[in-house]
Amino acid sequence: MTLMEPIKPAAQAGITCTVADLRRAVNAAASIVQRRNTIPVLGCLRITPRDGLLEIEGTDLDTWLTVDCDATCEAGEPFLLDAFVLRALLVGAEAGDSISIDRAVDIVTMRIGPTTIRLRLLIDVTDWPAEPSVDGMVWADVPETALARMIDSVRWAISTEETRYYLNGIYMHGRDGRMAGAATDGHRLALYQSDADWPLADLIFPRYSVTALRNLLTAGGNQHISVGGSTKPAMRFVGSGWTMFVKCIDGTYPDYKRVIPDRSKICGHAVINRALLRRFPNPKVFRHVRDGIRFDLEKRIASLKSVTFGLEIEAGIEADGDFTIGFNQRYVGEVVQNFGTVRIEAIGSRDAALLLTEDPDLTVVLMPMWME
Amino acid sequence: MTLMEPIKPAAQAGITCTVADLRRAVNAAASIVQRRNTIPVLGCLRITPRDGLLEIEGTDLDTWLTVDCDATCEAGEPFLLDAFVLRALLVGAEAGDSISIDRAVDIVTMRIGPTTIRLRLLIDVTDWPAEPSVDGMVWADVPETALARMIDSVRWAISTEETRYYLNGIYMHGRDGRMAGAATDGHRLALYQSDADWPLADLIFPRYSVTALRNLLTAGGNQHISVGGSTKPAMRFVGSGWTMFVKCIDGTYPDYKRVIPDRSKICGHAVINRALLRRFPNPKVFRHVRDGIRFDLEKRIASLKSVTFGLEIEAGIEADGDFTIGFNQRYVGEVVQNFGTVRIEAIGSRDAALLLTEDPDLTVVLMPMWME
Repeated sequence: MTLMEPIKPAAQAGITCTVADLRRAVNAAASIVQRRNTIPVLGCLRITPRDGLLEIEGTDLDTWLTVDCDATCEAGEPFLLDAFVLRALLVGAEAGDSISIDRAVDIVTMRIGPTTIRLRLLIDVTDWPAEPSVDGMVWADVPETALARMIDSVRWAISTEETRYYLNGIYMHGRDGRMAGAATDGHRLALYQSDADWPLADLIFPRYSVTALRNLLTAGGNQHISVGGSTKPAMRFVGSGWTMFVKCIDGTYPDYKRVIPDRSKICGHAVINRALLRRFPNPKVFRHVRDGIRFDLEKRIASLKSVTFGLEIEAGIEADGDFTIGFNQRYVGEVVQNFGTVRIEAIGSRDAALLLTEDPDLTVVLMPMWME
Repeated sequence: MTLMEPIKPAAQAGITCTVADLRRAVNAAASIVQRRNTIPVLGCLRITPRDGLLEIEGTDLDTWLTVDCDATCEAGEPFLLDAFVLRALLVGAEAGDSISIDRAVDIVTMRIGPTTIRLRLLIDVTDWPAEPSVDGMVWADVPETALARMIDSVRWAISTEETRYYLNGIYMHGRDGRMAGAATDGHRLALYQSDADWPLADLIFPRYSVTALRNLLTAGGNQHISVGGSTKPAMRFVGSGWTMFVKCIDGTYPDYKRVIPDRSKICGHAVINRALLRRFPNPKVFRHVRDGIRFDLEKRIASLKSVTFGLEIEAGIEADGDFTIGFNQRYVGEVVQNFGTVRIEAIGSRDAALLLTEDPDLTVVLMPMWME
């Protein structure tokens, strides 16, 4: 290839790594970078060469995520590259290719397999917003499996309504000294209770960073994550090869315990599963119509009625009780979709119902819909 | 199940069919129903019981599509059901379940496996817009494989720009008495030449109905489709178990032949493939930037430059010639994505180029981008 000039020895020594390693690190760090930014530096990743690794950092000013990438290099000056351009360049590369990165003043030259890429360093690294320093962090060691399961169990219930901003996250707190996570939007509540010790303060982990954190965890993995919490409020997560700093939501989480029904007062139940709910039309078809799914515990029938569409559907269910209770179809569908067979336990047709899944550590509470 | 009442003999005899048959027919007919309609009847399907089959018809006032569904029934009055509700009801049903449909005045009762559905007939069948009758159709017998390949070969080049409405379709016409299809948006042109006889007039088949027609065809199938054309302008397609009537676009297709380069004047070429183009970032990353991909035939380099992102990418290619030619990256990418390895032949850097694929029946012409 005539276009391949020999790599010149530069003031800044070259960096070599594999496509697979760099792609993994860039994708993780870029996951918290917002696509639309009024501040250009926030569209970038900061790349810092250390001895034997590259440190790749992304931020959205609420979260700072640093991921390590194995590389042959020496410690050097950090530089900034556009996160989406870098990600796009790596998407099409063959996983087996090696990458060499050389830097000369304000131009970075990357060679990925047969491709040569020159990137101008458009944004000065001194513009990079530093992570706030937080004193007085209290630390705990949490198994990554427990953290991953907690997130998966409750994240679907997080509110997206910005007016009650304190509900826009997972309430990570201690119950009897053990880590618990709660999420609610006022209509439904998910509470997960783990076995992990939790000496930290009660903190609200923001919704926007949930996916990035979850992607760093392996469900079923046997690593431990160091979790630090401060009443600033902020959290820091340190895993193997990555660290995440998160500004938590500054607010008071409501006392969710009072909406959890007392199981001793339950006087009716119904059992539903995916096969049953699939038989009811997807709520997206009725998207501007508020129609609920109704469980007649006495007749043992699940039914859905839509006046707008002149539609009535009925199917038999396993149930017991002497009243009828109705729910938003989408909310019931989401719980069943996530957790399989669900047992609905209710006190009466206007009281919050308990939804029991196969996971004994998970409690789901659902408010009924008012049905005439 | 207590909710299952025995099916009562009704004035209208019951209809029985399988979920799989009805689903296939409903999905096909619903594919031309627009999701948003100001005229409620256009959101419906017309279901007509015939001896031994159900005829299911959908329309958007430009296209009428009728699909047959095997069923046990007697000829009876047609009725209208909401296309999206019906489709949603069938999505979740088990393919093996049988369906019984009974009608009593204005209520249709469907039993799908353990589910009972009652649907009120909200819209009167007399509102159904009748298909226009067209005289003087000229008919041809076209192998479905030829029709399917023609559509697949040219549909990506159809214009979506409404101002030049006559480009919003496939120009189906005869070339030396054989069926040819052309599509262009002014920047690129695809022309497919088949072996099938074509005694019909030249017609512009509208873009909105392309997907519905294509889904009715099996590539590699050995059926023949009867294709009728009239200068009204309109077309009718009759396949096994379905018939489609389409109002064609009333306009004059431009004389595309004059943009096809003369191969005897070609004085440069380049060969590109999917592996090469994958190495250039996805054009969606640069979506508001008009950057072209440039082929330097002399240096044998493909390159992409983005001033906005301070980016330059180069990779070696097989090429020959003494000039440089540039194209919109998305257009080149689409051809390579659809057809694999492509040979670009060009007369000069400002003339339309010929893109040759592995299919000798397909001609692709691409206008170059002006690059400084």
